[in-house]
Amino acid sequence: MRKPLILLTNDDGINAPGLRASLSVAKEFGEVVVVAPDSPQSAKGHAITISDPIRLKKVDVFEGVEAYECSGTPVDCVKLAKHVVLKNRQADLCISGINHGSNASINILYSGTVSAAMEASLEGIPSIALSLLDFAWTADFRQARPFLKLIVRKVLEKGLPNCNLINVNIPKLTTAQIKGIKVCRQSDSRWEEEFHEAKDPRGVPYYWMGGDFAATDMAEDTDMWALKNGYISIVPSGHDLTKYDAIDQLNEVTFA
Amino acid sequence: MRKPLILLTNDDGINAPGLRASLSVAKEFGEVVVVAPDSPQSAKGHAITISDPIRLKKVDVFEGVEAYECSGTPVDCVKLAKHVVLKNRQADLCISGINHGSNASINILYSGTVSAAMEASLEGIPSIALSLLDFAWTADFRQARPFLKLIVRKVLEKGLPNCNLINVNIPKLTTAQIKGIKVCRQSDSRWEEEFHEAKDPRGVPYYWMGGDFAATDMAEDTDMWALKNGYISIVPSGHDLTKYDAIDQLNEVTFA
Repeated sequence: MRKPLILLTNDDGINAPGLRASLSVAKEFGEVVVVAPDSPQSAKGHAITISDPIRLKKVDVFEGVEAYECSGTPVDCVKLAKHVVLKNRQADLCISGINHGSNASINILYSGTVSAAMEASLEGIPSIALSLLDFAWTADFRQARPFLKLIVRKVLEKGLPNCNLINVNIPKLTTAQIKGIKVCRQSDSRWEEEFHEAKDPRGVPYYWMGGDFAATDMAEDTDMWALKNGYISIVPSGHDLTKYDAIDQLNEVTFA
Repeated sequence: MRKPLILLTNDDGINAPGLRASLSVAKEFGEVVVVAPDSPQSAKGHAITISDPIRLKKVDVFEGVEAYECSGTPVDCVKLAKHVVLKNRQADLCISGINHGSNASINILYSGTVSAAMEASLEGIPSIALSLLDFAWTADFRQARPFLKLIVRKVLEKGLPNCNLINVNIPKLTTAQIKGIKVCRQSDSRWEEEFHEAKDPRGVPYYWMGGDFAATDMAEDTDMWALKNGYISIVPSGHDLTKYDAIDQLNEVTFA
């Protein structure tokens, strides 16, 4: 049997320890091709580069693994992987991450990690976005390893029924502390931003985005609840933003 | 009665003719505050700026209208509008656009125009993303004007039931040719990219994203069908990407 072809990307950049962590798992299951940003691309959402050229450079940073660094966004990486790197070869799986930091709840909208996996899912590739709830560059990705292996194995064996993308978040716990896996819905929580306002050396004001995540939706069926209670959360995710329950009334009343 | 407070933004930049077109409509309904990018920000999706400072400058470019240009993405503009410009004033409506070019179907993922409106909708502001199917800077936005007025008036009067965001696309037709408004679902079509590959003056290769939109889902209930058949399309849109019909099987079979 042909070994599965696994496309690996992320948004923290090709040198991020999180990418090495997922690479070491992916290599056990198939042939891996890495196409990842040449610099950090966090919070780039589903941005693509259309008004500028993009650079793509083959690099030799992972022993025995075909790898490319790309000047574009995470979604650019996936598009270049498909059209330039893999060409007529269809990947059997896309893994994005492991991201340094949570992509649970509404973070799915802002996350370059999830957007890269979503872009691959649009192309018919079963895709896994992986995030660890630890922003540190030195985060300990080994603790999640047995669960990552399980998730990748199950997706390769069984596919993803009724979806093509799972958004996986991993609590910052030891292997022994992690209680298991819960498949859930996206929590409807929000960021509460706070902008630092200051002046640059020339006296010109600037703003810098900060803030806290407000856990306003912690219902038991949410990813936020699962993570808080020691589980790995998996949210099966799509790309159709239509609010179907609004169509009839808008058609028949509001815009009639 | 207090005049409605309308936040206006876009992704083509504060000088785009499409923004002036929506401003001229919005001014008829309320007090308008403009916070828009200082340069084109097309295809930025839901990207935000977290690793760099953002500039925000009050400008006097629209007679009698409070306006700010912002160095960030469209979503940054909305966040700064909320936290820095409007502070304790809650907008009654957000209008994003009119975008130069379509944001129908899957373009909702890539579009800075829709993402800005979506960000406002997350903050509880009823929001309208507006796009005209004409990429030209000289596009004729006057033809759509009577329909824009109707849409803004209806949303202010009746609110948006079961949703907080509508993605409006307008065909490139004269007022007389436009058949009306259809509320529909997001077509499940895709881009078929093609990358131009060339070398820069120093002989280093680069790639430039191009491509065509493939109208693969033209069912009668889609925005793509409505637009093709002469209607303005309105897709009520949310921010929950969960594929609910996948949860049970993933929980009980795949990851059991």
